Amino acid sequence: MTTTPPARPVPEALAGLPGFTRDPAELERVRTDRSGYVPPTRPAGLVRARTVEDVVRTLRAAHEHRVPVVPRGAGTGLAAGASAREGEIVLDLHRMNRILRIDPVEQIAVVEPGVLNADLNAAAAEHGLFYAPDPASTSICSVGGNIATNAGGMRCAKYGVTREAVLALTVVLADGRVLTTGAGTVKAVTGYDLKALFTGSEGTLGVVVEAVLRLRPAPVATATVAAWFRDVGSAAAAASAVIAARATPSVLELVDGPTLGAIDLATGSAHRSRGEAFLLAQTDGFGAELERDVVLRAIEPFAESVLVADDPAEAEALVQARRSAIPSLEALGRVSIGDVGVPRHRLAEMVTGLRRIAEETGVEICTVAHAADGNLHPMIVVDRDEPITEGPPKLALGRMFELARSLGGTLTGEHGVGLLKQDWFTAEVGELSREVQHRIKQALDPHGILNPGKAV
Amino acid sequence: MTTTPPARPVPEALAGLPGFTRDPAELERVRTDRSGYVPPTRPAGLVRARTVEDVVRTLRAAHEHRVPVVPRGAGTGLAAGASAREGEIVLDLHRMNRILRIDPVEQIAVVEPGVLNADLNAAAAEHGLFYAPDPASTSICSVGGNIATNAGGMRCAKYGVTREAVLALTVVLADGRVLTTGAGTVKAVTGYDLKALFTGSEGTLGVVVEAVLRLRPAPVATATVAAWFRDVGSAAAAASAVIAARATPSVLELVDGPTLGAIDLATGSAHRSRGEAFLLAQTDGFGAELERDVVLRAIEPFAESVLVADDPAEAEALVQARRSAIPSLEALGRVSIGDVGVPRHRLAEMVTGLRRIAEETGVEICTVAHAADGNLHPMIVVDRDEPITEGPPKLALGRMFELARSLGGTLTGEHGVGLLKQDWFTAEVGELSREVQHRIKQALDPHGILNPGKAV
Repeated sequence: MTTTPPARPVPEALAGLPGFTRDPAELERVRTDRSGYVPPTRPAGLVRARTVEDVVRTLRAAHEHRVPVVPRGAGTGLAAGASAREGEIVLDLHRMNRILRIDPVEQIAVVEPGVLNADLNAAAAEHGLFYAPDPASTSICSVGGNIATNAGGMRCAKYGVTREAVLALTVVLADGRVLTTGAGTVKAVTGYDLKALFTGSEGTLGVVVEAVLRLRPAPVATATVAAWFRDVGSAAAAASAVIAARATPSVLELVDGPTLGAIDLATGSAHRSRGEAFLLAQTDGFGAELERDVVLRAIEPFAESVLVADDPAEAEALVQARRSAIPSLEALGRVSIGDVGVPRHRLAEMVTGLRRIAEETGVEICTVAHAADGNLHPMIVVDRDEPITEGPPKLALGRMFELARSLGGTLTGEHGVGLLKQDWFTAEVGELSREVQHRIKQALDPHGILNPGKAV
Repeated sequence: MTTTPPARPVPEALAGLPGFTRDPAELERVRTDRSGYVPPTRPAGLVRARTVEDVVRTLRAAHEHRVPVVPRGAGTGLAAGASAREGEIVLDLHRMNRILRIDPVEQIAVVEPGVLNADLNAAAAEHGLFYAPDPASTSICSVGGNIATNAGGMRCAKYGVTREAVLALTVVLADGRVLTTGAGTVKAVTGYDLKALFTGSEGTLGVVVEAVLRLRPAPVATATVAAWFRDVGSAAAAASAVIAARATPSVLELVDGPTLGAIDLATGSAHRSRGEAFLLAQTDGFGAELERDVVLRAIEPFAESVLVADDPAEAEALVQARRSAIPSLEALGRVSIGDVGVPRHRLAEMVTGLRRIAEETGVEICTVAHAADGNLHPMIVVDRDEPITEGPPKLALGRMFELARSLGGTLTGEHGVGLLKQDWFTAEVGELSREVQHRIKQALDPHGILNPGKAV
């Protein structure tokens, strides 16, 4: 249904659009994302959209002439969901980056898709509010991309993923018609939940051009605990103990030894000298300190050393250490970032299994995890000129997915399927679900022009 | 697409099923719900399902013979979403009421659809957990019905609606095939979010036969404030002030004067002597008392009197007063329960407008509201033998929806569209959204046998 047609000239209806370009440097830029995967070919062209009308005209022409379109935000995706190939046109939305409105009383923001996650958070902070989904890439990723992948981050075990923050969407459908779905109210159940269907659909059902997002009151207080462990299994067990103690930390991040080593190398810190795994926990709200004590008591039996970071600067440095994990690894080579999820009490089995996979395949795997929701990012690090989609890295990736599934988990918690995880998609969702998803795709995009070959 | 076919004999493939009956008393019971609407005809038959296989056989036969099927839970719906007419077969799921598993470490419950909301909460409480969606009808409504309507309740401004609690669903599709969607993990984004699509689809896309639901840690403390006001506008303004103060109450319920009068009459309380409107606020968690003080300071300037209910029994009595609103009104006549939503800062305009509609149409309207999410239940009370779907009640209902929409709101926050709100559906969602929803319906239920004429 969604195979790429052979190369052919770009129809004038598209090539004549004001934002259209074939500039080779631009095409080189937009053919890939941060997944580490570079497609063998370059796209046929690029439309730099600045207005909803630009998107409408692009899709109307693409629909009429059956030209595949790859919507693109900030290009920070980790599953090659925005990678583009020969015959495809990239629809670049990153210049549609205005915050149209923040309503501090209603606690909502109305934004264009190219707004950066961190910029939205900075604007919300001026009103004592925050936007909950916070991918590690907050300073470079766009809200539109967050919606396309139903992105998560550190705070979602407590505050929910992107889907929970999306109240309404304006979406340009495959044929160029403009759909508004959802409501400006916290609750609304009139008809099917199309905004939830579009959220996480990786640009295959429509192009989001405006979103009404829920903001939340900034917590009045935050408390921070850090702990170092003999091994990663102990850290995972401590994280599970925090959940079993019925605390609801806003942050519960696990970092393994190899990743700590990379962070130390890149930032001059000395985490790995304190242990082979690190856990960062934050509680927030009116009872932040009381809840921190519950977390502390749960962690202590498993840890080598524990630090209560009362000083905000010290706490911020610990958060930054965690945030620097991916850039630190990227300084060492090409990184393929996994995104598996497991039930929270299977975390220790998963991290131990990842060690085994690393040994057996000879591939280096460094792991960080959003431990409070069982979402792990095992990162495969290879030399810069080594491919990640074949040989031992691909073998390790497949073993990783199989292990997550055998523990009752999923192959992607928050990054999406994109192009890179297609091989394992049906094994996870099953033939019938695949068929139903394709029927929905067919109902909304009958010519299959939207991001072909991705997601479903 | 979904018109009811003329009456004809029930095919043997259905009539021969073990749970099938034509018992007139049973058919009388299942032709209506708690909406106050009684269809003019009775359904052709009833299948009392006890197993997934019963549901599979029913739908397989119905699909083959093009017989419309009305899925039914506990029958407590308020939008005639489960009402059944001539030519339709009711698929009654209320006997599929087992809690299959509670995992206290993972904080999930696996349940059949007929489990009552309160029974699930009681089972979760044994492990120090709770199930967040809590419709006022908790003791009589089923979890399957909650999923069908994406039900809310008092606690969802803080803890989310049913959609946020549904991690995975097993659904029997229109043709009898069994689909599993979602994952046993807190986060998962593999493919389209079908579980979110099924949640709130009012039995028109499939029949939920099993659900994996997220439980949450029971709060370690709860604090309660009650306040009485000169008029309902002041109470609404106080509720908006609580939100503007950036508190996140777990409960923020508004009750107007006429409803207080009915509660007093039914329960012997004396709320109305204290004011013409009542606001009940609860905060919970480790900082419950500190947050209560923020709520208190926001409410005080608007209130005639305020009560901090430190005694748990006193707090519980106040919650019970709110919960008794609907039964108290039902003691006075036939009640049609509205479900409009407005942006939270428009609450005062909405309640004032409802007073005006009541005066102008001569219809009695009593209002309660989940004020923290702007969801109001204006209840039209008529004599027991008066219809609610024509004359002044229908006029008032239409005016109510128009008012909510003019304030940027919705016609249904948590009860669904059902049969009763069909007239206003397209005005709210728009022609294009209606078309997209019908295409999805067509993709999943090509013969239109599932709950025809409801929701979309």
